[in-house]
Amino acid sequence: MSPRVTKLESGISVVTDRMPHLETASLGIWVAAGSRHETPSENGISHLLEHMAFKGTARRSARQIAEEIEAVGGDLNASTGFEATGYYARVLGNDVPLAFDILTDILTAPAFDPDELAREQNVIVQEIGAANDAPEDLIFELFQKRAFPDQPLGRPILGTPQTVRAQSPATLRAYMASHYRGSRMVVAAAGAADHDRIVEDVTRRLGPIAGGGNSAATPARYSGGLEIGVRDLEQAHIVLGLEGRSYHAPDFFAVQIFGNILGGGSSSRLFQEVREKRGLCYSIYAFHAAYSDTGTFGVYAGSDPADSGELLDVVIAELAAAAEKADGVEIDRAKAMMKVSLLMALESSGARADQIARQILVYGRPVPLEELVRRIDAVSVEDVRAAGRALIASGRPTFAGLGPRAGIESAARIAENLGRAA
Amino acid sequence: MSPRVTKLESGISVVTDRMPHLETASLGIWVAAGSRHETPSENGISHLLEHMAFKGTARRSARQIAEEIEAVGGDLNASTGFEATGYYARVLGNDVPLAFDILTDILTAPAFDPDELAREQNVIVQEIGAANDAPEDLIFELFQKRAFPDQPLGRPILGTPQTVRAQSPATLRAYMASHYRGSRMVVAAAGAADHDRIVEDVTRRLGPIAGGGNSAATPARYSGGLEIGVRDLEQAHIVLGLEGRSYHAPDFFAVQIFGNILGGGSSSRLFQEVREKRGLCYSIYAFHAAYSDTGTFGVYAGSDPADSGELLDVVIAELAAAAEKADGVEIDRAKAMMKVSLLMALESSGARADQIARQILVYGRPVPLEELVRRIDAVSVEDVRAAGRALIASGRPTFAGLGPRAGIESAARIAENLGRAA
Repeated sequence: MSPRVTKLESGISVVTDRMPHLETASLGIWVAAGSRHETPSENGISHLLEHMAFKGTARRSARQIAEEIEAVGGDLNASTGFEATGYYARVLGNDVPLAFDILTDILTAPAFDPDELAREQNVIVQEIGAANDAPEDLIFELFQKRAFPDQPLGRPILGTPQTVRAQSPATLRAYMASHYRGSRMVVAAAGAADHDRIVEDVTRRLGPIAGGGNSAATPARYSGGLEIGVRDLEQAHIVLGLEGRSYHAPDFFAVQIFGNILGGGSSSRLFQEVREKRGLCYSIYAFHAAYSDTGTFGVYAGSDPADSGELLDVVIAELAAAAEKADGVEIDRAKAMMKVSLLMALESSGARADQIARQILVYGRPVPLEELVRRIDAVSVEDVRAAGRALIASGRPTFAGLGPRAGIESAARIAENLGRAA
Repeated sequence: MSPRVTKLESGISVVTDRMPHLETASLGIWVAAGSRHETPSENGISHLLEHMAFKGTARRSARQIAEEIEAVGGDLNASTGFEATGYYARVLGNDVPLAFDILTDILTAPAFDPDELAREQNVIVQEIGAANDAPEDLIFELFQKRAFPDQPLGRPILGTPQTVRAQSPATLRAYMASHYRGSRMVVAAAGAADHDRIVEDVTRRLGPIAGGGNSAATPARYSGGLEIGVRDLEQAHIVLGLEGRSYHAPDFFAVQIFGNILGGGSSSRLFQEVREKRGLCYSIYAFHAAYSDTGTFGVYAGSDPADSGELLDVVIAELAAAAEKADGVEIDRAKAMMKVSLLMALESSGARADQIARQILVYGRPVPLEELVRRIDAVSVEDVRAAGRALIASGRPTFAGLGPRAGIESAARIAENLGRAA
């Protein structure tokens, strides 16, 4: 059941994990290119390219792409992140070759028809509008902007209406030629999928992909500070965050555990103190987003604007308390939750394909479950406390607030004082 | 691999599907009681009860419930719908007895502590605030209200701040005593779970649950009309709907297929015409929500307010065109998508437990995959067209709009004319 890996001459890695009891397969092509690799005028081009891939190739119209995959009951999707873009499908095992035919076609021979481009630019402008209407999306955009100002990591993945509309077939082709290179691509499949057949297909079909390519993005410089959006909402939505850890940081797993005990499950400190004991909010959680050279760590909560000051005070106090007093029982609970989650990912072809593809992108190899479990188990109580203290000491906090003026400003004042004290 | 069913003396059904290759199990208790069973003054009590179940029992505090399940890496969750409420867990196979111990404890011996209740009422008021801030949640509340005015099916599942705060330990106990009865409960498990052991556990632990109980809700009377929410948003969010079908309707599967070809996948008529050809929106889809005696069928879209009139015109034209001209190729595609989806549900313990529990609630038995496939395959081209025509002829449409005044009102005028013509 351990994954098989083949590296092609162009640098493309093919990784598969056969799950013999499944009739369906999840598969896709992941590329180490995302919004971090964009210049300011390119902002949103990675995501636009992801959309345009489905809008027709030399052999297929946009409609044919949709019809061919759905005719076999499959589905095709894609997502763009800060550091990677994935194109994936889920189909019956017999239709894996068809799915790869389509996926490789859209990545090697996209048509970039100007009329299709103009319509898709409008679709993305609508997507930006929908994201701006969703407070839980918009608050993270504000947060990211303040954490990494004037840098790719601080710009929205979707881009802005202006930068999206500024792209042309020529800018898309240039971006693709420089970023969609063999050494930055991973083909992955899990479920009812045969490694040798996939290697054969991919070798033939991804021939036009050039080797080489440099994946290094400009190093991130975390900044911090306040970013506020006043809006007529029922809730005050807030995010308080700090610089987090890269995937490669020695204390990466200690920070993961720290986040889990602070605001992971319903036994976490924040859920118990803020929701269960005080009844101040419905949704509160900690997050840790890791990138290649940095990360963000923080807490999201939405509450009655009248309570947002009290809520933020409690978040700050619990953050400090967890770093001082995290204990063995809660740490063991966090470890158990992380280990069972890893096991559950092994039972779903979709989660598994995504996991092995990202492990290749991040670590250069699929990481065995036992090794991950060993690394989690190796974290001590003192490691978790030290990770929490290091997060807090690492620099200025970032506060983002979205909602009615009164609630947001009272929370912002608290965050500002915290910034001065730090 | 076919599910096993045991019916206990109290009327409780136990259904399990062992998936021998899995190490984890999904399990839960589903009750045929939801917001449809509430009186106007009880509005939201089904959902409040679902929350209070986790707030402590005779043997366990709220914190102990959270800590016990997370100590084994599991998680516990619940959801409330119009006609059913589910309480479920996902754990390693060895921890299934512990999970059932907790689930049966919270449903037989809830503490309903007044202080915990007051805090949880506030948590739900926050949840209502968050839903009101999310346009894609709020638009469906407006739609439901107009489709079924002054009826339980037209009221929000979450209730209102007033009705939620009006509940007491006594009203919770009374609601539970009359609705949480044996004949309305299903215990289900899928994955690494042993049927006989579960039957034994459940028989012992659900002893206090009384038999009998009448699950009939007041029959729904679909109405239709316009419901508009003016709000300062970037997008105009609209839903245009009609009365749909009950689970038991002879043409239920024909309507499912009709919905799929109209606005299911990316090869559907609406996705192709509205998004791909005109670039008018990011999100557009058809939905069909079935209940025991009725249903809703409709289309959601979000667009630039300036385009919402054109968008609605196209939706109406495509609805009529699909009912006249649905063809064999697109119907076969819809059937393939539905069949592969059913197969995928068989590969996930969570989807499978939910599926067999709901089949018992709706049909009184687990329905074999082959039977579902046979029913899907039996639908003819003419059946799909007839189902579409019957939907359109069935009564007044329901239009809900949320967003800036101009866009919403231009769409509302079109919807109003449609209502007059019908």
